[in-house]
Amino acid sequence: MGKNLVIIHGGGPTAVLNASLYGAVKAAKASGQVDHIYGANNGTGGFLKEDFIDLGAFSEEELGLLLATPGTAIGTSRDPIWQDDYEQMTKLIEKHHIGYVLFSGGNGTMDTCGKLHKALVQKGMDVKVMGIPKTTDNDIAITDHSPGFGSAARYMAASVQELCADVRSLPIHVVVMEASGRNAGWITASSALAGEKGYGPDLIYLPERAFDEDCFIRDVETLLRKKSGIVVVASEGLHDKDGNPIVKPVFKTERATYFGDVSSHLANLVIDRLGYKARGEKPGLLGRASIAWQSPVDRDEAVLAGRMACEAAFEGESGKMAAFRRISDEPYKIEPFLADIDQVMMFERTMPDNFINEAGNGVTEEFLRWCRPLIGEALPDMISFNRLSGRKEGK
Amino acid sequence: MGKNLVIIHGGGPTAVLNASLYGAVKAAKASGQVDHIYGANNGTGGFLKEDFIDLGAFSEEELGLLLATPGTAIGTSRDPIWQDDYEQMTKLIEKHHIGYVLFSGGNGTMDTCGKLHKALVQKGMDVKVMGIPKTTDNDIAITDHSPGFGSAARYMAASVQELCADVRSLPIHVVVMEASGRNAGWITASSALAGEKGYGPDLIYLPERAFDEDCFIRDVETLLRKKSGIVVVASEGLHDKDGNPIVKPVFKTERATYFGDVSSHLANLVIDRLGYKARGEKPGLLGRASIAWQSPVDRDEAVLAGRMACEAAFEGESGKMAAFRRISDEPYKIEPFLADIDQVMMFERTMPDNFINEAGNGVTEEFLRWCRPLIGEALPDMISFNRLSGRKEGK
Repeated sequence: MGKNLVIIHGGGPTAVLNASLYGAVKAAKASGQVDHIYGANNGTGGFLKEDFIDLGAFSEEELGLLLATPGTAIGTSRDPIWQDDYEQMTKLIEKHHIGYVLFSGGNGTMDTCGKLHKALVQKGMDVKVMGIPKTTDNDIAITDHSPGFGSAARYMAASVQELCADVRSLPIHVVVMEASGRNAGWITASSALAGEKGYGPDLIYLPERAFDEDCFIRDVETLLRKKSGIVVVASEGLHDKDGNPIVKPVFKTERATYFGDVSSHLANLVIDRLGYKARGEKPGLLGRASIAWQSPVDRDEAVLAGRMACEAAFEGESGKMAAFRRISDEPYKIEPFLADIDQVMMFERTMPDNFINEAGNGVTEEFLRWCRPLIGEALPDMISFNRLSGRKEGK
Repeated sequence: MGKNLVIIHGGGPTAVLNASLYGAVKAAKASGQVDHIYGANNGTGGFLKEDFIDLGAFSEEELGLLLATPGTAIGTSRDPIWQDDYEQMTKLIEKHHIGYVLFSGGNGTMDTCGKLHKALVQKGMDVKVMGIPKTTDNDIAITDHSPGFGSAARYMAASVQELCADVRSLPIHVVVMEASGRNAGWITASSALAGEKGYGPDLIYLPERAFDEDCFIRDVETLLRKKSGIVVVASEGLHDKDGNPIVKPVFKTERATYFGDVSSHLANLVIDRLGYKARGEKPGLLGRASIAWQSPVDRDEAVLAGRMACEAAFEGESGKMAAFRRISDEPYKIEPFLADIDQVMMFERTMPDNFINEAGNGVTEEFLRWCRPLIGEALPDMISFNRLSGRKEGK
């Protein structure tokens, strides 16, 4: 009797999490090295309940649809993993003849991946455990970027381009667009790419900088003297200099606190303090589920990461994560490598200083150069509104 | 010296307002009947300021880009039109040798269109004034539907499909998606089309029905007994049985009052009354600016409406609006006709009773049949998650 393989998803889905699943399943099928390819139904919790989905039974057509389906076809979870759970996992691995475990997820999931690897080594069990990076927020360390981010960046850049075209047509004084990424501003920052098509945001506020209401109001006022409609992109995780979120908590669980919308908060601030019309937009989860704006580069790299992790496990690697090293921005070139999972576990990667402008309300050319290739194809061409004469509009 | 033509946009942009502009400009160019094709810069106000854009100077390439550019390349406005303005408009029409006026807009703009037509007739001036329907909200009377709606409907249906795939992967108890259309529920209702791909919303609340908080909470509770993650689509204009909006006003001008977000309000209601995790999403303006989800049927009809209005003006028609009559749902067939603008002016068209389900939390098969062809191509195929076993999740 041969060995089996199990794939486990952790954390929030991305537009290409299923693409990594596709890459892993295809590689596992092609290898001929496993009897069964299992998906843990709804993450580690599903694994602990021995609730498996038979991925080997997916038809080629179904596998193809994975590339264009957001979410995750095997579910995922955010459940905490306890010390006892690792003991239980090793027992189940033995019981189900599992020789290979692939974890696809973010920092928390890579932590689980590393701890399971260690537990298995301690028990002297010959089981290979590999990580597939997955995050829209791009906060996984060591790798240049992670699958999931390029599509979230493409969604944000393209949506802000469309929003700016709309706002320029019918100036609403201030429109605030909220972007995901509570502690890392990568998605927020990617909105700046819209500017390369002539429709960029006017101000960008990242969680890497303390948010100052007075500075914000001053930034907005200064711009409104020059143009009648401005677009602001703000991270959902903005906080003040003491680290307190600028919005109030709305829901608390034992594990986490959830906060109100930064977009409507900032819009109301403009209304209250300046008396200008303002509104907030918050696409929220749509930004990680958009197939229309899926980045083809991101999708291909997600497939690659899934395949790499699977093949590395078959080659005897364990306790590592598929990662990318940037070789060149233009032409875009990356080199895949295996990162030691110890270096990845629970480190949160935020934007470096050289990617953020001095005023703390925008990004640098260095960031644009780094981010541009990740969104895949160029943003759509639009007609230039530059031939329009200047707009005058009273308060 | 020949006559000139002017095109004026009114009200909020759509994903295909520029497509109607394209249709009108192409028809005007092809006719050889006008010396100049003007665009009023920023709506009627631009016209009153004699601020014109020379649309005849747009290259073929630029005109082509109009089809893929949201917003409006000549701007628009929501400024009120006063009685004196009509007198002034007739003077400027004479001064600038304008023989043809095309208004592209919604109910308010069609009102302006009809009043200008009457003012010109009273003065015995031989000027043709025609209307091009434009609204994402689909609230223009007489016509089966209006350009702009199909794309807004496609955006909403596709976004809800993606959102539902995400929520099914990682159940958040309740996600509330806010849809545009303050008084008319057409866009909100169109989200139901996502259900035909297996990823439809669980509850839909339209502004055509009084919103009852207790019923809403009961609906949500009932569903949460059966499944762990539900998606609710709610109109931005929900109001109680007395007609009061369910959210508080956040900004007032002389002309209008702006309200808070229905999405976060309902999410907070679920949190407060049921203790379940809930969140709101509000793509807002993105829903009328999306080229990615532009409906090809809508775009073609927008071009047609622009062309029709222009050609009808050249043929001597005035005081009318381009309109569509539905001949058949399947195969989809419409018949263009000219509607008397008197019948259109300021009537607000809401959803008929036979399109809304009895419980007031969903739509009927009749609505789906009517709406389906308007979004153009079918929604994308996604892998079915049905093979997943049932999910259990505690409160």
